[in-house]
Amino acid sequence: MTQTLNLISIYTPVKAGLDLVPGIIEETLRTPSVRLEEVIRYFFSKNGKLLRPALLLLGGGIARSLAQEAGIISERQETAELHLAAATEIFHAATLIHDDIIDSAPIRRGLPSLHVKWGPQTAVLAGDFMHDRAVVTIFRYGNDRITPLFLKTAGEICEGEVQELGEKNNINLTEEVHFEILRKKTASLLACALQTGALVWGIEEKKFEALGRYGYSFGMAFQIIDDYLDFAGRESEFGKTLGSDLEEGVYTLPVIRGLASAERDRVVRILHARSHGKRFSMLKKLLQKTGALSYAREKAADFIARAKLELDVFPESGFKTSLLALADYVIQRER
Amino acid sequence: MTQTLNLISIYTPVKAGLDLVPGIIEETLRTPSVRLEEVIRYFFSKNGKLLRPALLLLGGGIARSLAQEAGIISERQETAELHLAAATEIFHAATLIHDDIIDSAPIRRGLPSLHVKWGPQTAVLAGDFMHDRAVVTIFRYGNDRITPLFLKTAGEICEGEVQELGEKNNINLTEEVHFEILRKKTASLLACALQTGALVWGIEEKKFEALGRYGYSFGMAFQIIDDYLDFAGRESEFGKTLGSDLEEGVYTLPVIRGLASAERDRVVRILHARSHGKRFSMLKKLLQKTGALSYAREKAADFIARAKLELDVFPESGFKTSLLALADYVIQRER
Repeated sequence: MTQTLNLISIYTPVKAGLDLVPGIIEETLRTPSVRLEEVIRYFFSKNGKLLRPALLLLGGGIARSLAQEAGIISERQETAELHLAAATEIFHAATLIHDDIIDSAPIRRGLPSLHVKWGPQTAVLAGDFMHDRAVVTIFRYGNDRITPLFLKTAGEICEGEVQELGEKNNINLTEEVHFEILRKKTASLLACALQTGALVWGIEEKKFEALGRYGYSFGMAFQIIDDYLDFAGRESEFGKTLGSDLEEGVYTLPVIRGLASAERDRVVRILHARSHGKRFSMLKKLLQKTGALSYAREKAADFIARAKLELDVFPESGFKTSLLALADYVIQRER
Repeated sequence: MTQTLNLISIYTPVKAGLDLVPGIIEETLRTPSVRLEEVIRYFFSKNGKLLRPALLLLGGGIARSLAQEAGIISERQETAELHLAAATEIFHAATLIHDDIIDSAPIRRGLPSLHVKWGPQTAVLAGDFMHDRAVVTIFRYGNDRITPLFLKTAGEICEGEVQELGEKNNINLTEEVHFEILRKKTASLLACALQTGALVWGIEEKKFEALGRYGYSFGMAFQIIDDYLDFAGRESEFGKTLGSDLEEGVYTLPVIRGLASAERDRVVRILHARSHGKRFSMLKKLLQKTGALSYAREKAADFIARAKLELDVFPESGFKTSLLALADYVIQRER
């Protein structure tokens, strides 16, 4: 399995806009507080994949080219699109910062997490600040459909987090409930970003829903692969500590599948064992042996196939090609 | 100084509505997570003063009686008013929970703070959840003027918190900057609650602004008295640990005034001293001696006088009488 696709080439059709996003993020988060500014600069020093802004601009690109045929394009919409793209990334960053506190995660993007580096107090405040700026931006640049969609999504993310908390250490967690959590925690914001871009330019209802379903399936695959790589990836490539979900009692798809296998008892014994060092590598081997790891990868591939099918309703365009390539990228990525 | 006024009698004109608020809060925060439900029940087990819902209903009462004369009353507005009242309290609670993490405050309403009792992880999540539900409620029941006002206020509260963080341990903090922080952190939400109630029923611009100015002055006095009682109050009556602001390097008005007195050097020495036990009582005595404590009380009284003047534009009513009494209550309270 080689890294045949890379994000830079996939993002090409929206490169012009996407290049402006980090500057808008910086501008949106400007604050007179020297401390907070330092914290924000630290967080964004390692750029993430900018996946949400990219999806927003791709959804926007598709809707815009349809609108262009009808001749309805305004500069105001272009500005709105870029600020909304920045807002989705800021919102996502705020979520990550609080999640890292909630999950006691030590590392983010290869650097110590904010709560480790600056203490939980500053991390809570930084997350609140960024969350707040994101909501204000959405409200300022969104429209009657974007703002409610975004607020609904913010609510779902939080519900997903709450539900995940409730399912910690539950060895009877079903795949169905787990998928529901993934939908809320991860897929909803990816779908929302894509749909928000489309709503900037206006889009017919059927196509709006197709984008939502692409975003959902894409998001599910994205998170499943993330969790799969937690076991199958090399830590140095992945930038997070392996096994941190496990340490927190959060059971992801490979574990859930392992618990449903003939080796259930051994999996349970490992999950309930005290020491972590050995525990993780033992579990990893067992999940490989029972086929739970490859099962997770197949599930992700199924979601990706479904995501790609949803794009059939759109005419060919560079944006559509990117969304198809992005789908393939997700299951090919190794970090 | 005796407690001649009590909140129950002051709240009488809005009692019918206010009695419904705790139930609506509970309903709004319902969640399938057993853990989170327990946390929420714990937090609301000691009811606060419900000051923000009360202000919202008082502002609503004033505007409604003006609207009633014009004959424009709907059941939809009554429902909206109650849900918005609940939302302000939920939003405030979310802020308190995160603030207590940010300020490492051990006690809230006489009970261990959420982050002490349940750990910072759960406290972050509970705050996020409550914040989110408040915003969703505002969006659902607010109107074109209420939602932007609320989001602006949420932004100001966060900015105030950020600014406070930046001024920690600053012995040259000016009264002006300190008041700016109080305006953002405390007064803005109190003014917002009052104005939100009025906006449910619609109100002429001049009266809307008068309510805002009452809310601002009232809020400033409220916070100054809170900080004054941190030095002058008895801990058992106050329900917070005395001197916790001091321990965190947050300098409130009595300290700022003491630093501006002839005893500045002694105040600085105490602030920079290591041990806390003695430090606090020494500082308290010094602030008494320099008149810094009584200065803070006078400042609060000035704000209260200004707040009451703002009510002159309103015709006599039970709601107006309550707002006048509430103003007096704030400087008479001992906890």
